[in-house]
Amino acid sequence: MSKPSENGTSLSGAESLLHTLVACGVDTCFANPGTSEMHFVAALDAVPAMRPVLCLFEGVATGAADGYARMAGKPASTLLHLGPGLANGLASLHNARRAQSPIVNIVGDHATYHLQYDAPLTSDIAGFARPVSDWVRRSASARSLPGDVATAVACARRSPGQIATLILPADTAWAPAERIGTLGADTPLSIVSKATLEKIAGLLRAPGRVAMLLRGDVLHGQGLQLAASIAAHTGAKLFCDTFAPRIRRGGHHPVIERLHYRGDEVIRQLAAFDHLILVGAEPPVAFFAYLGRPSWLVPSDCALHTLTRPCENGPDALERLADRLEAKMYHSAVRRAVATPRSDEPLTPETILRCITTDLPEDAIVVDEGLTSTFPYYDLLDAASSHDHLNLTGGAIGSGIPLSVGAAVAAPARKVVCLHGDGGAMYSLQGLWTQARERLDVITIIFANRSYAILEQELDRVGACVDGTRSRRLLDIGDPDLNWTALATGMGVATERVTTVAAFRDTFGRAIRATGPILIEAVIA
Amino acid sequence: MSKPSENGTSLSGAESLLHTLVACGVDTCFANPGTSEMHFVAALDAVPAMRPVLCLFEGVATGAADGYARMAGKPASTLLHLGPGLANGLASLHNARRAQSPIVNIVGDHATYHLQYDAPLTSDIAGFARPVSDWVRRSASARSLPGDVATAVACARRSPGQIATLILPADTAWAPAERIGTLGADTPLSIVSKATLEKIAGLLRAPGRVAMLLRGDVLHGQGLQLAASIAAHTGAKLFCDTFAPRIRRGGHHPVIERLHYRGDEVIRQLAAFDHLILVGAEPPVAFFAYLGRPSWLVPSDCALHTLTRPCENGPDALERLADRLEAKMYHSAVRRAVATPRSDEPLTPETILRCITTDLPEDAIVVDEGLTSTFPYYDLLDAASSHDHLNLTGGAIGSGIPLSVGAAVAAPARKVVCLHGDGGAMYSLQGLWTQARERLDVITIIFANRSYAILEQELDRVGACVDGTRSRRLLDIGDPDLNWTALATGMGVATERVTTVAAFRDTFGRAIRATGPILIEAVIA
Repeated sequence: MSKPSENGTSLSGAESLLHTLVACGVDTCFANPGTSEMHFVAALDAVPAMRPVLCLFEGVATGAADGYARMAGKPASTLLHLGPGLANGLASLHNARRAQSPIVNIVGDHATYHLQYDAPLTSDIAGFARPVSDWVRRSASARSLPGDVATAVACARRSPGQIATLILPADTAWAPAERIGTLGADTPLSIVSKATLEKIAGLLRAPGRVAMLLRGDVLHGQGLQLAASIAAHTGAKLFCDTFAPRIRRGGHHPVIERLHYRGDEVIRQLAAFDHLILVGAEPPVAFFAYLGRPSWLVPSDCALHTLTRPCENGPDALERLADRLEAKMYHSAVRRAVATPRSDEPLTPETILRCITTDLPEDAIVVDEGLTSTFPYYDLLDAASSHDHLNLTGGAIGSGIPLSVGAAVAAPARKVVCLHGDGGAMYSLQGLWTQARERLDVITIIFANRSYAILEQELDRVGACVDGTRSRRLLDIGDPDLNWTALATGMGVATERVTTVAAFRDTFGRAIRATGPILIEAVIA
Repeated sequence: MSKPSENGTSLSGAESLLHTLVACGVDTCFANPGTSEMHFVAALDAVPAMRPVLCLFEGVATGAADGYARMAGKPASTLLHLGPGLANGLASLHNARRAQSPIVNIVGDHATYHLQYDAPLTSDIAGFARPVSDWVRRSASARSLPGDVATAVACARRSPGQIATLILPADTAWAPAERIGTLGADTPLSIVSKATLEKIAGLLRAPGRVAMLLRGDVLHGQGLQLAASIAAHTGAKLFCDTFAPRIRRGGHHPVIERLHYRGDEVIRQLAAFDHLILVGAEPPVAFFAYLGRPSWLVPSDCALHTLTRPCENGPDALERLADRLEAKMYHSAVRRAVATPRSDEPLTPETILRCITTDLPEDAIVVDEGLTSTFPYYDLLDAASSHDHLNLTGGAIGSGIPLSVGAAVAAPARKVVCLHGDGGAMYSLQGLWTQARERLDVITIIFANRSYAILEQELDRVGACVDGTRSRRLLDIGDPDLNWTALATGMGVATERVTTVAAFRDTFGRAIRATGPILIEAVIA
């Protein structure tokens, strides 16, 4: 706790809150404020180091904070209005929590003395917060606020990344706070023991067939090369989860095989292995249960081992493991050739992915919620220029547009390409407006198949009758067709609709050379 | 429990669920399904008496169920996908709970045996549900499901209307259920005692100045005339809450004074009274706390009395009270004259409300989330044709479009006119698509002032600095302007932008004569 108010006048709780966030390294706030947050909003004028980003729906704010955390490696804050505002942000927070993204939520509440009256907007904010938060606290007073904020940030930063939710009663924001909170040093990451390293090294030296499942920062930093060296040296196979929060791909980065979305396929992928070593990952399980199909996807004759848990230092463990194995031999991956589609090929998810693969600029960020449109063509992007790939971690649909907002705010010099199904994009389309407001450099590609295509597959899978027009109609979003160019125009985002490969390539190429948001509606129905 | 499967084949849990809902009088389902709900979706083909209404965002589904309940006087069901799907519907459920609207939520979950694996979409569904639900149950098996569903409906129907949330594990939906649940008779409403009636009658006969605050079904049924008779006979003044869930107005219905949104104004409204009698209402409190202003709005020299609590039979109490007072003299209200705006007047919220007042068709439903645009002109609508007025009960912004969907489904022969601020309408604009899909007869009027106008007033109120460009920018949604005609087009809804009184009248008149959804963007910035 330090730094009394610089001008000698009283520091409000809200001003202290903002100064404390900035002092703790949190300088971006994705906000959808209401009346109880007006003192926070007013305090922004006094704390120019905090960048507020207005979102017109709370799920955009929390999803953007997730995307920001994945790319910046540190938390942003959100600013949400009471229980209903937090509620609107919960689905994105579910995803963020599954992605282990650090986030500090600030949720305004009624003044402490006002709660007893059960005014219309009173609700159990902590009750809403708990299922998605690692830490929840209601600040008791302006005096405790600086410490509460610093603790929230410390908690969010705890490895591998947590959700901290601070409830801010209005009187806590407007009363005098006196001081600014500061952050202690982060707790160093746990280091795996020599015994663990020795055991894993032994497995990798032994003749059995070994796979490693990677997750977390080992997929986008130095750990990726180290894992590839170990694999090259020992013959081990590298896998990542279906929905890795962030993975570095393309260029000369190693190719990591993605576990399939379908459990049956995962069992096939893992069938050949005697050992599965977890590196910051959990054992693979089915996304959903299906009658007569297994939930647990590790074959019964495949032994499970853990190199690092999510809270342990993965890159350090891989480095020490590589040293121990004398595995230094990683050579750059050889990019496979992907043919640019001919102009007379039909516009399909596959030809679109081939276009993107050949034309993606260096160091782009690809946000992928294409689901049925991108699942089958995921591997193509290994042949693209070096980029980060962000996925729908957590499975709550509608993450792509908010993630792209946050990624673009965190990495303003990089091109963001967001691949999105049309049904899923409807859940948080309001994020397009924030792309326009902040002039974010995002290309959103809507795969317009006019259906919940993934659910149509699921309906087939559960054995529903084929002629079920009533059930089919509930999965068909084509009556009326969504007009995504109109929706983008409505949000102030430039847009084009394309129906041919030639038009797609042309539009995508121009979008890459330009700066600022654009939405391409790719009609593939 | 009765009616075994009619064709002798096994009845699945999902089929039993749907048959049970229908048997209990719930025949409409506002749905946004996912994989875990596919058996429910498939079962729709077997239960044609259930009407599914697809919503492209869960807040639309739950808000529509609220609007449906307000107009139908009985619950619809929702169908939501796991914790994140429920989370997206919570803000609307907050409003519905405050409006005492009966709703039966069906929330799909993973199969019971799958939960242990903590798959990516696993979450604490009951934890999400509790803050907005009067009743939460996880169905344990297909055999218990019929009884669980009947209990959920019974709970939702309990006066004055409750939120029941039933969690439906996927295996509960696909296993055999054997039977269909049935509903017992509703518990009769509690009747107020003679002693209470005598006491209230005594107050009304005595010389003091008396006000009555009405809420619930006394505002839109026979109770309204009875209250007016009592008021006319005794000189008592009638009030309703700022955000009454549903109130019958216009035509020859009595005029009920609305309590103001601002606490200071409520204190002024109540200053003249010695007694305030609550009829299904809670005592008025401030919507938000403000520094130095009171939260409790009943003047200290005004005595509080309760005629009926929300769970008691209000119309019965008013009828017996009127008998006791021999108050039978209600005469129809005389409609005040409201001048149609001249064509050369500017298009403002006031001129728009004058147009609507003069042109509103008989028996319309007005859904009002106009906030700053409609607050000051609320009284005008007392001079319109007879209609029902639905408000933003609960205060969670973005209710208007979903409420209009549900009201139109419940009352297909009536014209729905939805008055909405532009900022608020963004929270659940996906409801426009459902208006188009279901060909609902809704006129949505967007008051396009390109700002969170209510928050700008709030920022002034908290004493923020006037030159705060950073804070103001967080309340300004005009960069870029939202283009509501494009947004409506994107959702398949007919639309026009108007900037003059003449154009508004012309467009509104044509919309009234036509059938089906239309959105009018009234530019008042």
